[in-house]
Amino acid sequence: MTDTTDLTLEQKAALTSGADFWTTKAVPDVGIPALMLTDGPHGLRKQAGASDHLGLADSVPATCFPPAVGLGASFDPELAERVGKALGVESAIEDVAVILGPGINIKRSPLCGRNFEYFSEDPIVAGVMGAGLVRGIQSQGVGSSLKHFAANNQEFDRMRASSDIDPRPLREIYLRGFQRVVQDAQPWTVMCSYNRINGVYASEDPWLLTTVLRGEWGFEGLVVSDWGAVNDRVTGLVAGLDLEMPGGGGRTDAQLVAAVRSGTMDEKALDVAAGRMLDLVRKAQARPVIAGPLDVDAHHALAREVAGRSIVLLRNEGELLPLRRDAKLAVVGAFAAQPRYQGAGSSLINPTKLDTALDAIRDAAAGEVAYAAGFALDEAGDTAALRDEAVAAASAADVVVAFLGLPAAAESEGYDREHIDLPAVQLELLEAVLTANPNTVVVLSNGSVVALPFRDRVPAIVEGWLLGQAGGSATADVLFGDVNPSGKLTETIPLRLEDNPSFGNFPGSFGHVRYGEGIFVGYRWYDARKIEVAYPFGHGLSYTSFAYGDAAAAVDASGDVVVTVPVTNTGEVPGREIVQVYTALADSAVERAPRELKAFASVEVQPGQTRDVELVVRRADLAYWDVRVDAWIVEGGTYTVDVAASSRDIRSTTTVTVTGDAVNLPLTMQSSIGDLMADPVAGPVVQQAIAAMMSDAGGDAAGAGMMADADGLQKMMASFPVGRLAGFGSLPVSMEQIEGLIAMANAAR
Amino acid sequence: MTDTTDLTLEQKAALTSGADFWTTKAVPDVGIPALMLTDGPHGLRKQAGASDHLGLADSVPATCFPPAVGLGASFDPELAERVGKALGVESAIEDVAVILGPGINIKRSPLCGRNFEYFSEDPIVAGVMGAGLVRGIQSQGVGSSLKHFAANNQEFDRMRASSDIDPRPLREIYLRGFQRVVQDAQPWTVMCSYNRINGVYASEDPWLLTTVLRGEWGFEGLVVSDWGAVNDRVTGLVAGLDLEMPGGGGRTDAQLVAAVRSGTMDEKALDVAAGRMLDLVRKAQARPVIAGPLDVDAHHALAREVAGRSIVLLRNEGELLPLRRDAKLAVVGAFAAQPRYQGAGSSLINPTKLDTALDAIRDAAAGEVAYAAGFALDEAGDTAALRDEAVAAASAADVVVAFLGLPAAAESEGYDREHIDLPAVQLELLEAVLTANPNTVVVLSNGSVVALPFRDRVPAIVEGWLLGQAGGSATADVLFGDVNPSGKLTETIPLRLEDNPSFGNFPGSFGHVRYGEGIFVGYRWYDARKIEVAYPFGHGLSYTSFAYGDAAAAVDASGDVVVTVPVTNTGEVPGREIVQVYTALADSAVERAPRELKAFASVEVQPGQTRDVELVVRRADLAYWDVRVDAWIVEGGTYTVDVAASSRDIRSTTTVTVTGDAVNLPLTMQSSIGDLMADPVAGPVVQQAIAAMMSDAGGDAAGAGMMADADGLQKMMASFPVGRLAGFGSLPVSMEQIEGLIAMANAAR
Repeated sequence: MTDTTDLTLEQKAALTSGADFWTTKAVPDVGIPALMLTDGPHGLRKQAGASDHLGLADSVPATCFPPAVGLGASFDPELAERVGKALGVESAIEDVAVILGPGINIKRSPLCGRNFEYFSEDPIVAGVMGAGLVRGIQSQGVGSSLKHFAANNQEFDRMRASSDIDPRPLREIYLRGFQRVVQDAQPWTVMCSYNRINGVYASEDPWLLTTVLRGEWGFEGLVVSDWGAVNDRVTGLVAGLDLEMPGGGGRTDAQLVAAVRSGTMDEKALDVAAGRMLDLVRKAQARPVIAGPLDVDAHHALAREVAGRSIVLLRNEGELLPLRRDAKLAVVGAFAAQPRYQGAGSSLINPTKLDTALDAIRDAAAGEVAYAAGFALDEAGDTAALRDEAVAAASAADVVVAFLGLPAAAESEGYDREHIDLPAVQLELLEAVLTANPNTVVVLSNGSVVALPFRDRVPAIVEGWLLGQAGGSATADVLFGDVNPSGKLTETIPLRLEDNPSFGNFPGSFGHVRYGEGIFVGYRWYDARKIEVAYPFGHGLSYTSFAYGDAAAAVDASGDVVVTVPVTNTGEVPGREIVQVYTALADSAVERAPRELKAFASVEVQPGQTRDVELVVRRADLAYWDVRVDAWIVEGGTYTVDVAASSRDIRSTTTVTVTGDAVNLPLTMQSSIGDLMADPVAGPVVQQAIAAMMSDAGGDAAGAGMMADADGLQKMMASFPVGRLAGFGSLPVSMEQIEGLIAMANAAR
Repeated sequence: MTDTTDLTLEQKAALTSGADFWTTKAVPDVGIPALMLTDGPHGLRKQAGASDHLGLADSVPATCFPPAVGLGASFDPELAERVGKALGVESAIEDVAVILGPGINIKRSPLCGRNFEYFSEDPIVAGVMGAGLVRGIQSQGVGSSLKHFAANNQEFDRMRASSDIDPRPLREIYLRGFQRVVQDAQPWTVMCSYNRINGVYASEDPWLLTTVLRGEWGFEGLVVSDWGAVNDRVTGLVAGLDLEMPGGGGRTDAQLVAAVRSGTMDEKALDVAAGRMLDLVRKAQARPVIAGPLDVDAHHALAREVAGRSIVLLRNEGELLPLRRDAKLAVVGAFAAQPRYQGAGSSLINPTKLDTALDAIRDAAAGEVAYAAGFALDEAGDTAALRDEAVAAASAADVVVAFLGLPAAAESEGYDREHIDLPAVQLELLEAVLTANPNTVVVLSNGSVVALPFRDRVPAIVEGWLLGQAGGSATADVLFGDVNPSGKLTETIPLRLEDNPSFGNFPGSFGHVRYGEGIFVGYRWYDARKIEVAYPFGHGLSYTSFAYGDAAAAVDASGDVVVTVPVTNTGEVPGREIVQVYTALADSAVERAPRELKAFASVEVQPGQTRDVELVVRRADLAYWDVRVDAWIVEGGTYTVDVAASSRDIRSTTTVTVTGDAVNLPLTMQSSIGDLMADPVAGPVVQQAIAAMMSDAGGDAAGAGMMADADGLQKMMASFPVGRLAGFGSLPVSMEQIEGLIAMANAAR
């Protein structure tokens, strides 16, 4: 193949934007083919027939795996990798070069319309799971596109709003997952997001796309715009945006050419972008041939397995679950027959098959299974009659399984939710059903959290999220115990929307949204503020039980912290436990959450078996972003290490002492008296000078007529920048003496 | 007197900094005297003897009025004005030209060490009360100094930390009170604060000190630095800082001279500052002679009256209060005999007299009054023995009056608190006393809020704040009903520190503190998030009761909203009620609190009497700060008007329809499809084009394979900036057509 020196200016410009909605431009003269990029990320959305202008038309059938909201609950990057591999295979069969995913944005608010496409409120979970998916996709010679880079945490005004974020939360929460995926899995492409960050469009931010992504993280691939995210093409290209999609029909290519011709843009910038496009073509061309047709059944089986791992058993009082096969069941709720299994928008897959929970329950049950819709999904139908029918079925049953959830229009790409409540008609149905039969299991279908006001009054709640095309059968698997549930919550379920950290700062107004909660996102907030929640981050039950032994933690040769803990299955059935490691550092120099997830592992344990689980906390993950030096810094000290079954179910606590990174900040005239006193050279001199001043002032040690005590005076003085002493002209020390002292102290460092 | 043209460059420079800690420089040649500026603001802190270097020495006796934390609770600007007048008299007698106050910073966190010097968590309360004080002081020909300008809401690292605040909270919360005082009362001076705001030192911020303060608000006086707040003298002077205090011993004056000589600073900037200094001298010289000596008794009586108005009766179950005079009383708690009546730091007054509550109770009571300290304030003494003694006294009494509070070292200028708890020894004492005798009244002495974990278990709680030198007798006045308590809370008492809006964002680290809660400060936060509180903003009980009739609201000729409500004293004794008016606007274009205080009135009502209370909500106070146009904008619509006894005790609700200010934002290529659709000219054209595109795309109205329904597609499309359609090259409309449409729409406006 060619390189950029074989191309004309016009050809290079053309290469860096799309030919139509889904394909890049070919340059047949020099053997460059067009590449197809299609939506994902939990299945392939390859448009059927000719490309339309907005990508709205139907797509070819593909396996609909559980969206990230489900897959994430497995806390299992290997499972994600298997899904990624399957996505790669399906892409390859369809001759798709790049599948547009994974999406790993942080769930800042439960209202974000696109939360179902994202993994977690925690950056380590998002990063680890995203890396797994990327590894899987790319193992098949197909590219992934890590998105939406970055800080795209809402749909409202998404193409203009500026996510206004301070350096620490930006780095520690919103970029950390992206950094991990880039460094661990090198996605072929990164997709920049629509929004602005601190006033600058992601699509034209050289700091984001070049300094951080390539310079700091070592990204080697291509940056593609989200579809329509380019604001100014020339500015974007110079900033590091290589490929505009879907492409402006040649209009913006001409702008690039003109910019080079007029000298406002260096042609080298275009060479770099076109060169990256050629690299992508080369990678795509190297893909091994994977012949179709797709093994629909095998992928459906995988989708079912993953769905089973995605389900979170929130509550199971009195062990109503697993269901007895011979129980007389009433299935109520329209979702049992009309599953809600994915979200709307660009990720909407045309599934190869579709299981319903009702069919699967009928297949699995030995006894009678009555069904009543209970409510209509299209808001047609006689609500009272539907409810009465469901109540009658419930009354006649041993156990009721009530399928509740959010209607499809409630959550979608393109707009956010306005509340987190289930529809009133469903809540009313549930109350009526519970009155008729308290032995009721609630099964939820929802892409983002809903309030569960009934949670203490139903014996069992199964959080089914959105489970993909095999979700119906996976739900039956879990209900009857053929699969022991093992998913855990990747996001806190709050009691009320008003408890959420972003409340009042979401979704912003007039083009700005302030991330005022800072680093306190998700459980970090609820824990710091000691807010009661419905179900905490990391929570999920099993049909068996696990006992944790004493944890141990030690720093290994590479500086990572290795945590070990024995976990015993103390129940009767095999099960899988997601073990979590949280760290904390008391008396930190910076604000910290009481508990931050740093590592996790999903382990299968047989009844009576004990497994020694090893979890590695990377040293890099202990770092905070230090605004003084604009760098990641590991603070030295003794960290608390909580080994836990959830963020609020700590099973064993140990500590580990970590050596800190050096931060050598020279003393300056802006340094405080306290800073100087802490310095080994300057300290004693300053102490002496202060004593002299105090006695000269005629004040006693307590500050005489002003301060409550000597300690108070000391505290007040300590924060005084030494340069400001100049304002107190007749002090016994001169500015020159202080400057000399500072120079001496800095020299001694 | 002279003007600046009579002065040399050196003389002008010299005039703009202090001669020593408390005085400006005289220029005897041209008849310019030195002026004395001294600390305030709830009394005069004029240093006794020669000025020392740090202003730490004892001061001359002066009346210690209740600090702002107390005075504010009166919600009575006329009372503030009377206090101001007394301060003016005392200043004049001592030949003080300017008293350094009032301080009107917002109580963002209960932890701020200096909260006792500030009025409220609400800017209208702070502004109205501050203006009253300024009017009073200046009525005597003495200058005030409105401080600390601006956004100085913590003591931690106060000389370096940047208060990072978005435009709306900065304007609507942190500057609003300053704006009101400047516009209503024209303080002679404004004192700039130590801190930075959004990275710029207040002392050298031309936007703050000139554009806003003078340009927008019309401030006509002089800006003085807080003592030692000057970072760079030249930068500060150019920005609008006229007077450096205490002055750098000539060092920084020389910098000004050098800057003029070298041409880096225009001499006119110095002329302006020196001219303002001359204006201040002129004002000070015009002061009528007020001969001493001070009428100590009269001012003490005023201090007692004000203290009585400052006390907030938080709780009075079973009407334990007022005390029967013949009751057998046990007074416990060291504060009864050793009053805590002011805070530490620059506002610490050397009082002319000091009443203790114990003496005053003994004077007022007819029965036996036992006293036991219960705990030692100096943490010496045998805790158990002190407690036992108090318990014994409590057991033998009819009623116990327990004086609890914060020790002096707990709150001070110069450092912040770390928690809001009363000392454990006091809480333990209270538990023991309550067990011995449940008929216990708690009287609190504290400059900022404390948690009240016992609040449901004691029948009566008197919040005494810091009450100045006559607080002891005022407390007795209230306890026995000689004064009917009427104070109300100017700050919410939360259940826990963790509930506070600034929690996690206070006091910041490494030189930055993010005001992440935005406009949701104080009750605005608790109300928006529906957080239970111990006692809400505006709460305060009386020994009588008040019934509110139906409120009415109407816009008057000037655009203000006049609210009227009949208030009836339905009890047996005369009383004073603080009537509050809150507004809200549903479906506002910007984030708003559910309820914002806009007006208040303190009215005295006789038993059985009904008074028609009129409260004026200024139109300007309805405005929000619009970041699109950088201006105050009143949003049109129907406002809810709550007339209330507290922020959570709404007595009558009405509405008023307000005409909005015009905001004419021309359409641009950054405007969204939704923006265009809302335009009367562009709307129909765009609607038609979209219909054509949809049909061309072959998609059905619901967005075919992608969106949940047509409504969802519409929502997603509406947020699309029209300029971005260029990225979808083959659309049926060209960019030129869209540009034409926009031009046409703008022309029609």
